[in-house]
Amino acid sequence: MKTKQIVLNDRPSGMPKEENFKLVESDLPSLQEGQLLVKSLFISVDPYMRGRMNDAKSYVPPYQVGGLIDGGAVCEVVESASPDWKQGDIVLTQSGWQTYAVIPAETAMKIDPELAPISTALGTIGMPGLTAYFGLLDIGKPQEGETVVVSGAAGAVGSVVGQIAKIKGAKVIGIAGSDEKNAYLKEELGFDEVINYKTENVFEAIQKACPNGVDVYFDNVGGDITDAVLLQINQGARIVLCGQISMYNLEDPEVGPRLLVKLVQNSALMQGFIVTNYMHRFGEGFKQLGQWVAEGKIKYRENIVEGFEHTPQAFLGLFSGENIGKQLVQV
Amino acid sequence: MKTKQIVLNDRPSGMPKEENFKLVESDLPSLQEGQLLVKSLFISVDPYMRGRMNDAKSYVPPYQVGGLIDGGAVCEVVESASPDWKQGDIVLTQSGWQTYAVIPAETAMKIDPELAPISTALGTIGMPGLTAYFGLLDIGKPQEGETVVVSGAAGAVGSVVGQIAKIKGAKVIGIAGSDEKNAYLKEELGFDEVINYKTENVFEAIQKACPNGVDVYFDNVGGDITDAVLLQINQGARIVLCGQISMYNLEDPEVGPRLLVKLVQNSALMQGFIVTNYMHRFGEGFKQLGQWVAEGKIKYRENIVEGFEHTPQAFLGLFSGENIGKQLVQV
Repeated sequence: MKTKQIVLNDRPSGMPKEENFKLVESDLPSLQEGQLLVKSLFISVDPYMRGRMNDAKSYVPPYQVGGLIDGGAVCEVVESASPDWKQGDIVLTQSGWQTYAVIPAETAMKIDPELAPISTALGTIGMPGLTAYFGLLDIGKPQEGETVVVSGAAGAVGSVVGQIAKIKGAKVIGIAGSDEKNAYLKEELGFDEVINYKTENVFEAIQKACPNGVDVYFDNVGGDITDAVLLQINQGARIVLCGQISMYNLEDPEVGPRLLVKLVQNSALMQGFIVTNYMHRFGEGFKQLGQWVAEGKIKYRENIVEGFEHTPQAFLGLFSGENIGKQLVQV
Repeated sequence: MKTKQIVLNDRPSGMPKEENFKLVESDLPSLQEGQLLVKSLFISVDPYMRGRMNDAKSYVPPYQVGGLIDGGAVCEVVESASPDWKQGDIVLTQSGWQTYAVIPAETAMKIDPELAPISTALGTIGMPGLTAYFGLLDIGKPQEGETVVVSGAAGAVGSVVGQIAKIKGAKVIGIAGSDEKNAYLKEELGFDEVINYKTENVFEAIQKACPNGVDVYFDNVGGDITDAVLLQINQGARIVLCGQISMYNLEDPEVGPRLLVKLVQNSALMQGFIVTNYMHRFGEGFKQLGQWVAEGKIKYRENIVEGFEHTPQAFLGLFSGENIGKQLVQV
């Protein structure tokens, strides 16, 4: 049996291009005891994958040139050699950018199609949702009446962060890159204020939107947006460092003002994290996010690209700032 | 009764100069019920005072032009109008850069001259020691066998940080600005490795001294020394932001490489603090530091300038990198 795969053709330097990827056809190994043959239905493309395309030490090993781009996918079990699964089961896997895969049965997680659309297992009720949940609540700890600023606010993580902060009674300011995104955040998701970083002076806009300063900053982007926030933090502020997407495609490291003294002056905390730090609490997170979605307290959008061969384009779209909500490929 | 005071003549721009200060003579108010007349024996000069000379919002209000430079002092009670104190008592006060002062009795803290030299109440068994104690143990949390790097290692705070880290079983690397300081740190205080940032490539020296990476970084200086450490932190590293002395005298804000992505990649924590955050636990800190000093586990040096009129020079000496240990003025 054959599978189509997208492999890393060569390592991108700066902004990735379609030529950095190659579609290949491979033979799948035959199914062994304890394995599943799965068919991809939805494939996830995520900003963190850009980091893995560099040959650099990080929290996950780099992708290999010529190797598959692995990552999250929602699949259907085609054939099971495990007593725990049967044909037709819908599972969350790490099988990545391929149409079919043979995987160890224990790496699959069950998805119940009755609870929510299965694609949400890659978004709001998946890793991005859990990233928002643990980062905001465990590190950011927003209190009622506090001011929470979120960058990358219209993305898969940021849009959930803002809604959880609202559930906790905070005032929420979202920073995103288009008026369309901002209308969505304010009108559909209930953000209190929104800032378009492409058309507004971010420092002044924060000053206006946050007359009492910033208590929690959930950072997905880094760079000068983050500078503008750090200059306006309050005593005891918490800065949740989730991502730095503005840095990922730079060919040369960027410089910026040295602002650590702001953390000293304000006894502020800054904490980097990755969602798998909280693996032992994923059950709690899935349950709570599922409940909030069911209650209509967390809404979401998905940006779905059709056709497996368009997976690289869907990935590249993350960096052009076009997607609202979770970016997915429907195979 | 008269007191000599040193007041802020004008706000320094960049590196402070003697002309920014002025010695004046003032009349003391007459002693009221609940007050003490005290005579300064030792006056503290500290890096944080530089920040208060700017007209900027920070964790303590700025000094006023024409106003006294307040700060820690060890004094003798000359006359008491409080039942809690008597003539001859030795007290820690916030009376600052003056020879005599009338202070509210409740702002004085008792110093027992039998336990340790009274000057240590401004250093190792005072605010600098407590800063080291709470910052390192509460934020840095060094574990046995971990690698701890301290910048400003020969200063009043840094020298205590390194010794507490040794008590906790960590490997300790000190960064300071002279071979004399480094010989002191290694030979007298027991630091494992030392780096002279003025003569060595700090990045390479850390690489060599920390083959297992950096688990805890206690930062007193900021700037490119901090960059060199951040590039070499381990998963779960803790960065204690105590001071950024390299920034305090800059006329224009400095730029540097954007390194927050290192915190994301390593799930690292960075926490700014000021010692008064731990005021409710000062008793515990004083007791433990006093015990370690008595046991010879924490050693210290003081750099004592004689003569009240030399207080501004003693303060300026903090920024020329000359002092080993706590910088004091003996009145």
